[in-house]
This record gives sequence, structure tokens and C-alpha cells, in this order.
Amino acid sequence: MSMTRRTLMAGGVLAGPVLASAPGLAGGGAALAAPAAGLPGVYRYAVGEASVTALHEGGVMRPLDASFVRNAPLPEVQAALEQAFLPTKTFPTTFTPLLLTLGGKRVLVDAGFADQGPPGTGGALRGLALAGIDPGAVDAVVISHFHPDHILGLKRKDGTPTFPNAQVLVPEAEWRFWMDDGRMANPPDALKTNLGIVQKTFGGGLKVERYPWDKEVLPGLTALGTPGHTPGHTSFRLESGGRRLLIASDITNHPALFVRHPDWSAIFDMDADQARATRHRMLALMADGRAPVAFYHAPFPAAGHIARAGAGYEFVPLQWGVELA
Amino acid sequence: MSMTRRTLMAGGVLAGPVLASAPGLAGGGAALAAPAAGLPGVYRYAVGEASVTALHEGGVMRPLDASFVRNAPLPEVQAALEQAFLPTKTFPTTFTPLLLTLGGKRVLVDAGFADQGPPGTGGALRGLALAGIDPGAVDAVVISHFHPDHILGLKRKDGTPTFPNAQVLVPEAEWRFWMDDGRMANPPDALKTNLGIVQKTFGGGLKVERYPWDKEVLPGLTALGTPGHTPGHTSFRLESGGRRLLIASDITNHPALFVRHPDWSAIFDMDADQARATRHRMLALMADGRAPVAFYHAPFPAAGHIARAGAGYEFVPLQWGVELA
Repeated sequence: MSMTRRTLMAGGVLAGPVLASAPGLAGGGAALAAPAAGLPGVYRYAVGEASVTALHEGGVMRPLDASFVRNAPLPEVQAALEQAFLPTKTFPTTFTPLLLTLGGKRVLVDAGFADQGPPGTGGALRGLALAGIDPGAVDAVVISHFHPDHILGLKRKDGTPTFPNAQVLVPEAEWRFWMDDGRMANPPDALKTNLGIVQKTFGGGLKVERYPWDKEVLPGLTALGTPGHTPGHTSFRLESGGRRLLIASDITNHPALFVRHPDWSAIFDMDADQARATRHRMLALMADGRAPVAFYHAPFPAAGHIARAGAGYEFVPLQWGVELA
Repeated sequence: MSMTRRTLMAGGVLAGPVLASAPGLAGGGAALAAPAAGLPGVYRYAVGEASVTALHEGGVMRPLDASFVRNAPLPEVQAALEQAFLPTKTFPTTFTPLLLTLGGKRVLVDAGFADQGPPGTGGALRGLALAGIDPGAVDAVVISHFHPDHILGLKRKDGTPTFPNAQVLVPEAEWRFWMDDGRMANPPDALKTNLGIVQKTFGGGLKVERYPWDKEVLPGLTALGTPGHTPGHTSFRLESGGRRLLIASDITNHPALFVRHPDWSAIFDMDADQARATRHRMLALMADGRAPVAFYHAPFPAAGHIARAGAGYEFVPLQWGVELA
């Protein structure tokens, strides 16, 4: 599913005005279009007795300007992209929900967009189909935080639940922030779009349960408070058969920028200082523990390891077909 | 298609004794098995008006001993693997044939194993099927060199051509070496198995044509002499619409070892000194030209870029869904 040059040139258009100002999707972008329409991105790896199926939801290319990294000069950001052999005028954001099989349950971590996303997204449902999993067979959807690219896929455009039999498990702290009556009634401009999406998503029709931090959300899956990106932003420790995987959600956006330069802040971090402290703490843990990690916005299949590199870190992607160390 | 732990522990068994001593497969190995049986690895990217579909043929894990890298101490090799977060007691070798669409033709570059390989291989044909391409629709198969993992897939176990309508284009220099009557009649022990496979493959039933170096094999695909790995080992420059891709075949085995340490020699290089000179020359070209590159034994999808790193180089994999720079 390469982005064609034509699509790149077209630039600047997003699916709908609703998404254009939503955190997680701020700014216009072109789709990662598919000359290989129909070729899904789906990859499965083992974590002990559990399995993780990474689902390439797709992505968007956003025109890169000085607003994206709030505290670094644009030429430095472009130099980091060039070093990673990535485009320097547009910036790729991809989305990778994970389908876990865990203790006999099918558990989706974050929901993607279903049919509510910009062009070039929606691949996760195609990937599920290829993996032979019906949306009705998903037992639970665990949500890391309430940005649109993580929750919109809980429902389809027509308002029906995408995973009709699933419990939807959400962070208590995130629910408290976004579902606050006062905030809903008088939304600050910067949150208006996102609050609308939260209300539309969680206003009814889903079997929602809230979970606290530092406890198991489900047997083998522990919620870790990693706030800053949003007030209730959550990561997860998956443990099975003596193996583990740290599912680190959005503690960094693209690794080529924010793992290499953990002090840099993406526009999407709601509390930049807190997010930076969380990112430093978690990256140090990952590097020192040599723990396998997954990030929602890392290049598909969005899992690998973190190594120290100079003043920052680097993300070392897993090798396709080889068990995670 | 992760390798399961059970498979790793099983170790030491290859498909058949024939393969156990063949270059490209020397030594026993366990399969990269598939807990995700049926999930194929297939990825398509554009090069100008041409497209490249990378097909994950699968791979084998071989027990790692001092014989694999001929001129480096085993602990140094293991340190390099550990740095790449790869297993240190077994070594993954994967195979990625490429299906090009080029000037209206479907051109396969290297053939994998079809049904003649060790357990854990054969994925390329499943990938082709997922991409909607019938083997009968392949117009040409271009072979880089005559090691078994590149040519066995030209035929099925029953001797019939896997791609019944394809011209099979082979390097003139490679043909001259392996099809030499004297060598066939009195094969040196080290080449016996490989020579047998060459004879079985090219002894009849295929539409073979030989191509010279430094000329187009097909419009847009130029053969580049890169000898050493084998006497006639060939790389290719794919050019279309002002873009290019260097298809570098086996000038390196796994990048974590031989791109990081280009002086190291894998057991498979028939003329280690010539292969080393070729590797240095090509890696310098790739790094200085920032050219997109593909390698048969790089981690799937087996394409990316080469950057200088200390005394060696590093392989930077492409990002899934993002056009090659």
C-alpha cells in the first residue's frame, strides 16, 4: 500500500472538516493510497501463549510545517526525517490497532477508524477479515485514550457498534476528563471537535466499563498510567508464559522524530511537559529492560525494541517472521 | 508468521539431506513456523510507473556456530545479533522474491523454492495468489544466481515448471560456470549438491535465455555484474519514470551482520575476497547515492536504504505504506 506520487502531490485534503482540527489528526493530509488496493497489512507474533495480530489501519500524509514539532526548528525536524529516508515536506502518520488472543479471549487494543476515517484508513477491518476474525467475535476492546484515531472505530458511520459483542474498556482517568459535564457544556475551542467525537462515541450503544491504572484490565494485561499525551493516556503490559510486551500507545508519535529526540513535542501532546517526562521515563525503562514494545504510530508492524543512541534512543523494528527477543 | 518457541527448541532439522549441504542452505535449521498459518507476507511499492511486490517466501533458523561468519569470532557475531535484538544461538535467513510489473509485463526476480524448500518456505506462491496473480501470468523470471534458494522454485517437486509461460532469464557468466561440462562430470565435493540442483532445474523443460552484464535484461531492468558470492552473481537496476531501485540480490546476507560489518564473510560467499570487494563497492554507491535498495535476505519486505554508520553501514528499512524516497 505505497502512497502514490500523484496522491502525494494532491496533498492538503482530509476526509471531513470534523477531523481536520481533531487531536491525532490536526492539519490536512493526503491519504496513503493503495496502488496495491486489497493487499492488507496484517502480521502476527507470539508473546508466550498469547498472540498479537498487528493490523495496518492505514495512514495519512500531512504537510509538514513548523507547528508539528512545537519546540524544534523545522530544518532540524526535516534533517531527522531525511536521516530516516522519509519525505521532508509531508509527514506519515500510521495507525496500528492490535488484536490480542489472551486467555481464550479476543481483545482489540484501540479501535482505529472503522469507516469513519480519512481516505487511506480502514485497513484494520480488512486485516481482521484476512485473519479470519469476525468483528462479532471480538470479546473486548481496550482503549488507551480518547483521541479520534483510537476511538472512532468503536462505531460505524451509521452509529452501530463495530464490534457488537465487545465490552469496551476505557481508562477511568480518561473518562473523567472527557466526560466531565462542565467541559462538555462549555468546551474549550481546542477540544471541541474531540469532545464531540467522544460524546458521539460514548453517548450510548456500547457496553462500556472503566478501568483503573496499576491493575489488570484483563488477566495478563495491566494498565500503566502514562499521562501527558492526554490526561488519562494509558499503556499496557501484556504478560504470558514468562514473556511480555509493553504496549506503549502514544507515548511517542513517529519514532524517527520522538524516539530519536525524546525532548521534542508533537502538537498532539496535550500537556507537553508531562508527556515528555512520561516519554523519558518509559523509553529508559524499555532500553534498560530490553523489553519488546509496540507503539500505535510506529511503522507497521509497529513493534520492536528501544536502544539508547547518543542523547536519545532508537527504535529497532522486529524482523518479520522471527520471534521477539 | 512468528517462529514459535517450540519450533526454535526443536532446531537442527532441515527438509531434506539434499538441501543440508547446499550453498544458501548449508547447515541444519528450524523453520520459521506459522502460528498465523495462512497470513501471507506481501507488500507492494511503486518505482515510477513500475511496481514491486515483495513476497515473503519464509525462512529458516540455523544454529549459529563459528562456521557461519568465516572471519569473525563467534562472540563478536553474537554481539552484533544482540545489538539488533535478534536471537544469538540461531540465525534467521529469509527469502524475498520480487514480482515486478514493468512495461506491461509481470517479471519475477528470483524464484524462491516453490514446493521444494524446507518447512517454513513456500510463502511466495501464497503471496502471489493473494495479489491476484496466477503463476501462468508471469511473463519472465529473472535469476540473479544459481544458489538453490533462488532457482529451486522454477520447478515444482514433480518437475513441471512453476511458471509455465515464463521466459527464464539467467546470467551468462553464471550459466558458463555451473553448466560447464567438465565441472558437471567431475563436481568438486563442495559444489556437488548445488550442481545437481542446477542440472535438475536447467536440464530441460524451461524456456531459458542467457543475458550479459551491463545491458538491459528487459526494458527498464539492467544487469549489473556483482561477482564473488558466486562467479556470475548479478544485481539489477530497475528504472521507471525517473525513479530507480537497486535490486542487490545477495551482495550481503543479513544486514545486521554484513551491512554493519561489510568485511565479514558469510560461508555462502564462494570467493570471499571478491564478494567483499563487491559488497564494499556497492554499499558505498548505495549510501552516497541514497538509492532505494532491495536485498533477497534482508528482513521482509526486504527494501530500504543504506546509510554510513561508523566504519560500516546500516540498513534502514522502508516504512510500510510510505513511498520510497
